[in-house]
Amino acid sequence: MKKIEHIGIAVKDLNTSNELFAKLYGKPHYKTEFVESEGVKTSFFKVGPNKIELLEATNSNSPIAKFIEKKGEGVHHIAFAVKDIKSEIKRLKSEGFQVLNEIPKKGADNKLVVFLHPKSTNGVLIELCQEIE
Amino acid sequence: MKKIEHIGIAVKDLNTSNELFAKLYGKPHYKTEFVESEGVKTSFFKVGPNKIELLEATNSNSPIAKFIEKKGEGVHHIAFAVKDIKSEIKRLKSEGFQVLNEIPKKGADNKLVVFLHPKSTNGVLIELCQEIE
Repeated sequence: MKKIEHIGIAVKDLNTSNELFAKLYGKPHYKTEFVESEGVKTSFFKVGPNKIELLEATNSNSPIAKFIEKKGEGVHHIAFAVKDIKSEIKRLKSEGFQVLNEIPKKGADNKLVVFLHPKSTNGVLIELCQEIE
Repeated sequence: MKKIEHIGIAVKDLNTSNELFAKLYGKPHYKTEFVESEGVKTSFFKVGPNKIELLEATNSNSPIAKFIEKKGEGVHHIAFAVKDIKSEIKRLKSEGFQVLNEIPKKGADNKLVVFLHPKSTNGVLIELCQEIE
């Protein structure tokens, strides 16, 4: 794994949180993106080599809506950049990690993504992501 | 803010989680450290420019013990590296963030640290840290 690519934070209202995080970092978000398949609207902030992704649910079936209902706003997932997502999936499965989607799917920010079940990773929802070339 | 310095993850048993995260990253933790003032034993993993800090409580009054009791294992805080922690505290206070300790305290990994109350940051416990020279 190369670095923390981003941290995903579940928020109730993207506009309000965009303002809040702009104050935190002293600069505004640099893009907004919809991921229809996940039912989310996202915004991104850069912090050096890393990013912060804010996630707002666009419908009540969205994983983000369910997360907020259960746990409230807060850290939703941590994403690590990987060079070769397919070989990482293979390696992590052989180490006993529970891969949520074995075939990488298209996520936000031009990435192929896969998630590991938090039950196999100390309660942390981990995303692996690889830039689509 | 320069980058995500580390993500702090609350765990019940450091030895078990050290093994788990060594499998995740394909390499072991590189150091262990006690922070007596916080009642924690910590271990560190490097992931490119970032770190993962695992935190185990050393007594039942530790903030980590209370966190796990309430929320279970998982992401406890996100730490951002800053150049000048005192001026960042001043700036963030003026922006309305609730600073938990106004005078930076000595944390793990040779850092001066300050925390922002999660109520003022969308449920995320944020640490700012500056290397002690």
